[in-house]
Amino acid sequence: MAVEKLSEAAIQGALAELAGWTVVEGKLHRECTFRDFVAAFGFLTQVAIASEKMDHHAEIYNVYNRVRLDLTTHDAGGISQRDLDLAQKINTLLA
Amino acid sequence: MAVEKLSEAAIQGALAELAGWTVVEGKLHRECTFRDFVAAFGFLTQVAIASEKMDHHAEIYNVYNRVRLDLTTHDAGGISQRDLDLAQKINTLLA
Amino acid sequence: MAVEKLSEAAIQGALAELAGWTVVEGKLHRECTFRDFVAAFGFLTQVAIASEKMDHHAEIYNVYNRVRLDLTTHDAGGISQRDLDLAQKINTLLA
Amino acid sequence: MAVEKLSEAAIQGALAELAGWTVVEGKLHRECTFRDFVAAFGFLTQVAIASEKMDHHAEIYNVYNRVRLDLTTHDAGGISQRDLDLAQKINTLLA
Repeated sequence: MAVEKLSEAAIQGALAELAGWTVVEGKLHRECTFRDFVAAFGFLTQVAIASEKMDHHAEIYNVYNRVRLDLTTHDAGGISQRDLDLAQKINTLLA
Repeated sequence: MAVEKLSEAAIQGALAELAGWTVVEGKLHRECTFRDFVAAFGFLTQVAIASEKMDHHAEIYNVYNRVRLDLTTHDAGGISQRDLDLAQKINTLLA
Repeated sequence: MAVEKLSEAAIQGALAELAGWTVVEGKLHRECTFRDFVAAFGFLTQVAIASEKMDHHAEIYNVYNRVRLDLTTHDAGGISQRDLDLAQKINTLLA
Repeated sequence: MAVEKLSEAAIQGALAELAGWTVVEGKLHRECTFRDFVAAFGFLTQVAIASEKMDHHAEIYNVYNRVRLDLTTHDAGGISQRDLDLAQKINTLLA
């Protein structure tokens, strides 16, 4: 079954439960700042392992202690349930 | 001693020895594509360890099997010898 | 369905196709030496991502450029097909 | 200057300040259990980056959510100040 793009209303409803995430340029977006590079990259490694397991990969941007994550589903042409699931998982890693 | 911004001529001379790197928007720039996400993130982990050792961190962008690296030295207001050294080290990791 | 322990004959047959692996103390065993620590840990990160995806984790031992991997399936009380699959995947990462 | 092996008294004095570490078979030893494999390997990646920066590498053992670290200095034939420094750094990562 194809992954479907979520409606604007569905995304806004989900964001209410997803602390730290917004929609920027049509993608789920979160920025995090860590103590230092070591902490930032330790987090990114956790994101990497979790993403591969979900077969869904974030756009990752990192410089020093700052990380920016953008989630979208190419096959759906926008934000899908898979992005919400990954964002939820990432929040668990940050908790 | 302060890290100095290199002249355009010095950068162009160095690029001749740095396979795969160009200057984009005033930063040393290289893009790499890997077999898959696992290979890409294995490479990024190596870049992370090497960068922290050199106390100089790349701007890292990754999505799935694609990696984009941008190097600049904030304290120098441009590309410095530290960027050339890191680019050289990264090429060793890719060899 | 439970994961079953493989017979000695099945394991020996599989080892013929698994370059670098032997059975040591009842576990699939492989040792690898890398150029340096950076290369060794880059490899381990790939093993980590692949293992989590397969829901099956190696016993990992590392010091500097040396890595030792041991595979067994606790639920089966010995070596199972899951260990052979992970060993095969690890060989792909080393190729 | 050579790295020197610390006296038993010096090690015992230092252990008083190093929560979680003991001496096992002549090495500084600590075991940690994490929520799951993802958390354990995120921690190990931080240890890897910090170790390479200090040019001093732990013996790392990991299976699933469990990590065991052993520190010794080959050149000193025992536990040296470098092991204490790395143990201290690792405790910072765990804090």
